[in-house]
Amino acid sequence: MIIVMSPDSGMAEIEAVVQRLHEAGCEAHVSTGERRTVIGAIGDRGAITSIPWEAISGVEKAVPVLSEFRFVSREFQHEDSIVDVGGVPVGGNTVTLMAGPCAVESRDQLFRAAEAVLKGGATVLRGDAFKPRTSPYSFQGLGEEGLELLAEAREQFGLPFVAEALDPRDVELISGYADLIRVGTRNMANFTLLTELGRQPKPVMLKRGFTATIEEWLNAAEYIYKEGNHNIIMAERGIRTFETASRNTLDVTAVPTLQRLSHLPVLIDPSHSGGRRDLVLPLSLAGVAAGAQALLVDVHPAPDEAKVDGAQAIVPAEFEVLADKVRAVASALGRE
Amino acid sequence: MIIVMSPDSGMAEIEAVVQRLHEAGCEAHVSTGERRTVIGAIGDRGAITSIPWEAISGVEKAVPVLSEFRFVSREFQHEDSIVDVGGVPVGGNTVTLMAGPCAVESRDQLFRAAEAVLKGGATVLRGDAFKPRTSPYSFQGLGEEGLELLAEAREQFGLPFVAEALDPRDVELISGYADLIRVGTRNMANFTLLTELGRQPKPVMLKRGFTATIEEWLNAAEYIYKEGNHNIIMAERGIRTFETASRNTLDVTAVPTLQRLSHLPVLIDPSHSGGRRDLVLPLSLAGVAAGAQALLVDVHPAPDEAKVDGAQAIVPAEFEVLADKVRAVASALGRE
Amino acid sequence: MIIVMSPDSGMAEIEAVVQRLHEAGCEAHVSTGERRTVIGAIGDRGAITSIPWEAISGVEKAVPVLSEFRFVSREFQHEDSIVDVGGVPVGGNTVTLMAGPCAVESRDQLFRAAEAVLKGGATVLRGDAFKPRTSPYSFQGLGEEGLELLAEAREQFGLPFVAEALDPRDVELISGYADLIRVGTRNMANFTLLTELGRQPKPVMLKRGFTATIEEWLNAAEYIYKEGNHNIIMAERGIRTFETASRNTLDVTAVPTLQRLSHLPVLIDPSHSGGRRDLVLPLSLAGVAAGAQALLVDVHPAPDEAKVDGAQAIVPAEFEVLADKVRAVASALGRE
Amino acid sequence: MIIVMSPDSGMAEIEAVVQRLHEAGCEAHVSTGERRTVIGAIGDRGAITSIPWEAISGVEKAVPVLSEFRFVSREFQHEDSIVDVGGVPVGGNTVTLMAGPCAVESRDQLFRAAEAVLKGGATVLRGDAFKPRTSPYSFQGLGEEGLELLAEAREQFGLPFVAEALDPRDVELISGYADLIRVGTRNMANFTLLTELGRQPKPVMLKRGFTATIEEWLNAAEYIYKEGNHNIIMAERGIRTFETASRNTLDVTAVPTLQRLSHLPVLIDPSHSGGRRDLVLPLSLAGVAAGAQALLVDVHPAPDEAKVDGAQAIVPAEFEVLADKVRAVASALGRE
Repeated sequence: MIIVMSPDSGMAEIEAVVQRLHEAGCEAHVSTGERRTVIGAIGDRGAITSIPWEAISGVEKAVPVLSEFRFVSREFQHEDSIVDVGGVPVGGNTVTLMAGPCAVESRDQLFRAAEAVLKGGATVLRGDAFKPRTSPYSFQGLGEEGLELLAEAREQFGLPFVAEALDPRDVELISGYADLIRVGTRNMANFTLLTELGRQPKPVMLKRGFTATIEEWLNAAEYIYKEGNHNIIMAERGIRTFETASRNTLDVTAVPTLQRLSHLPVLIDPSHSGGRRDLVLPLSLAGVAAGAQALLVDVHPAPDEAKVDGAQAIVPAEFEVLADKVRAVASALGRE
Repeated sequence: MIIVMSPDSGMAEIEAVVQRLHEAGCEAHVSTGERRTVIGAIGDRGAITSIPWEAISGVEKAVPVLSEFRFVSREFQHEDSIVDVGGVPVGGNTVTLMAGPCAVESRDQLFRAAEAVLKGGATVLRGDAFKPRTSPYSFQGLGEEGLELLAEAREQFGLPFVAEALDPRDVELISGYADLIRVGTRNMANFTLLTELGRQPKPVMLKRGFTATIEEWLNAAEYIYKEGNHNIIMAERGIRTFETASRNTLDVTAVPTLQRLSHLPVLIDPSHSGGRRDLVLPLSLAGVAAGAQALLVDVHPAPDEAKVDGAQAIVPAEFEVLADKVRAVASALGRE
Repeated sequence: MIIVMSPDSGMAEIEAVVQRLHEAGCEAHVSTGERRTVIGAIGDRGAITSIPWEAISGVEKAVPVLSEFRFVSREFQHEDSIVDVGGVPVGGNTVTLMAGPCAVESRDQLFRAAEAVLKGGATVLRGDAFKPRTSPYSFQGLGEEGLELLAEAREQFGLPFVAEALDPRDVELISGYADLIRVGTRNMANFTLLTELGRQPKPVMLKRGFTATIEEWLNAAEYIYKEGNHNIIMAERGIRTFETASRNTLDVTAVPTLQRLSHLPVLIDPSHSGGRRDLVLPLSLAGVAAGAQALLVDVHPAPDEAKVDGAQAIVPAEFEVLADKVRAVASALGRE
Repeated sequence: MIIVMSPDSGMAEIEAVVQRLHEAGCEAHVSTGERRTVIGAIGDRGAITSIPWEAISGVEKAVPVLSEFRFVSREFQHEDSIVDVGGVPVGGNTVTLMAGPCAVESRDQLFRAAEAVLKGGATVLRGDAFKPRTSPYSFQGLGEEGLELLAEAREQFGLPFVAEALDPRDVELISGYADLIRVGTRNMANFTLLTELGRQPKPVMLKRGFTATIEEWLNAAEYIYKEGNHNIIMAERGIRTFETASRNTLDVTAVPTLQRLSHLPVLIDPSHSGGRRDLVLPLSLAGVAAGAQALLVDVHPAPDEAKVDGAQAIVPAEFEVLADKVRAVASALGRE
């Protein structure tokens, strides 16, 4: 922590800061420039950050040097994590395709989608049974019945599946069915849900809050990790900006940034980012070219009948084209 | 809903849209301009919005005319709602001061704060027992012990209190103690928590998600309202923008905007918005001048010892000045 | 400047950084913690910041301690600047009302507006002759004819006036007519225009770029100041955020923040911030309550005939109410 | 234009809107739903949009159906524009590499960079003689001397060059030297500069304002186009968001969005977007995979000596790797 003293702070105030550091068992390095005095705090990070520096007299600001997250950082673990999703490895030098309908609506819809994405080359099926909706009057998902249909599809097509958990009370139920549990963008900072997911055995896909910084996102992953669950996939799905031409702005820069800061695999969701069917292909290719290790794509056999997010779903034939182009780009860059 | 057809859509596609509307029991008004055909959809809002218009061939975009929320709207109820918080009316032409420490840290800290805010003129005490923290390594609150201390302070000082709920499983517990339950900014779109709060009898203070639009915020209020709990206070606490000179940007425009769109009372939190002690007074005055019906202020007897958010807490003497100036402005504008 | 070394930097890289500082005539204070080495750079700010630290091997990041602007800072001049606008003092403990039509459209429109704002208590007239428009097909202003009408109105009503300059080539012309020259939000970072305005004698109102940080805004003021023109009024007019319920988000927090960092007077434009007539009054009151020293209000005798921004203009009768309430709030807070 | 009437508007107000449309020579289609009356305005776009609808009594809001820009739209010209930059075609199915130093600092620096980028496969040289800097105390460029060095480098290496214009008064000078004139991000809405550039013969690269919507960016291009200069390249260079881990957020979604809306070629600047050397390669690949037709890359022979933006410049060896990978991705996607 770097503590910058205000220009009108005096010797007594500087001394008091040094004193607080010593009481906390830390060292203080005082540098006095022409216009500011700066104090470098050295010692245990937890001890230093628990002091409310900016509430202390004479302090202008406190600038952290170290990030708060630790176990999910590249400093803690140098090599890439590989997450096992029902037998499918995600991470490292591979590119994994996950695809399927946004919400499970019926057996027929799910099975037609599953068959199509398997044919296109997906190795994980997506489909939700619980949907968080902005309006209380929208379709909220089939619940446990949806999970049962997903399990049936897994059996028939040999595809492990990912489904969303919204409520800490549902985690045990979903964990009993799914191969990978997704935390949606609105729940990235739902710390009680994260803690619950950290205590069950299935891997977790952690969507970025659409207004979360990368640092906050990694802190959210740390919540899961520190409870004992180390199998986490980070999923970028677009952030909220002033631009309204697309639903959200895919932050493709987040891919190399995360890979620099963390060992966890990074996935791109091109469907929810753009919110438009015609954007799914270019955003998928951009994500893979930037280094994403997986894609999560909405595929629906009949988007114009979809109960949720039809505008962004692609049809099976489009998915096949997408999968081919993704393979071409991955292979041009020496990836699998 | 206004459905704008793309420039290369043909008669068959226009017909298909009209057909979908008729099947849903709605009317279609087709207007053909030089460059676009536009179809006005008239009929039941739910029926119209459940169709995925932008997934339908030939549709360029669908523009909603009506908002999704209904019961919390000014159209549904013309006169202001007044919310009763343990005997204190909030809303209408009054200005209510709620103040106290961000987190309950100890009996001594809470009671010194409560005494001070009572003296300054606050009529509701704040203090949290459960804290959502960005980092899993930060202080997370005293839990039920904190609630007991708050109940004791209520008895001693005659101040009803507000406390935050984070987890749907804690709602019953907190509802048993608190006079007003707060939903924090990170949980505004935690729909399972909102639903639970809609089913218990205590009023709810709904903080705006720091990246939620006003429309999303009102939809979140609708979740609570439609479960049967009509006592909701809307709390603006700053939004996330590109500006980093203050922690968040207080959206003072949200006050008159909400009051135009909804009958619910509006509160300003000047402490969490700015994140700096010196901003609390000007932001409080700005909020009240813009029409806010309540303020929620962090007051701590010793901010430089605070375990949470010390940098933004004001001390008791500052709170007295603030309360005096707030009364002066309110009275200059003909309010109580 | 604080230079944070990356965790895998070695002694040679630390030495090289120290060497660069010594070559620049500066001192280096090296602090080595458990996880990072941090180097404090002490000496001439210009010399230190001209080195591309983040391009140097082993450097993780460089964190500036001092702001770039100097002459406009509160550190450079402790007491408030008072800017003289054609005899009207702006700044300090006063609240100045500036009002009039967004664009000069005709003699009749301008004179009716001027008469009304004079009656309401405004002491400076606004009206533009050159308009920057997003679309090349919109009305672009009357040009010099507009300036002549404004000069005529000044003579008749005794009100100095403010008008916008868009083009460095027009500065001399506008400076010959106007009492105060405005830099619009789109030109805040038009450094050639700023430099030109710094070299002419009339005071300058510098609108904040709607996406500029406060630091960038103060740097823009520094451009004007360092050319020799010290009469600058800072004008907050709303920033661009994700919220679309109002045109922009008035950053009322910018008022106390600027006043802490700088000695220049601060003005609020409630009309362009909100973009809606019904928001002008609450935003004006919020601005004054937060400490703004002036307001700039669009008043039009017939907004439904306006060629520019009619939706945000208030009519003369509304302006009188606004002026009364502004005076009540200012007086409740001990201001003039 | 769709005009939505407020719920408490009456017949007389609806009639008045219809009347205004008829006076403007337009048609009105009135649709009355249960909760709102909506009026579709049909006729000349200019006539309709010149009326200040939202200032008219009873109008809740006016929603435009058509975009403001016209000549730069895909509707106006279906096939891709190809822009000739000193003999190099930009646009269509090709990928053009433009590279060189951010600012021309010396003959030696420029020539070493030019030699390197030629070797790597760039076909256009970048290098600026006039630099807009946030702080007035930073290096502002070599001016005309820089242009002369660029012209000399063009002669020696056979590379046409792009340079930035800041001031309308410099356009003639720069147009006399450069093959392509760049409008920087801060000047995207500098309409006097755009107009001047529309009246000279060299093609223009229009950087997106870092806070401009795509619609505003296309309107800025329209300013140039309608003055007679149709050779415009649109350059995405990152937008300002809440994320601070990278300098800006590359809006890769803007590439397909622009290509849907406009016929102009789209370029990505990976250097200014990310502001970090390690982000240049992944962002370049993402841009090309998303469909960008050109890249603009900062290359410097010695970034740690750079006077401007050293942290984001890559060295010649890195540029060769980048060019190879860009070619591999382009070729995997069937492009040249």
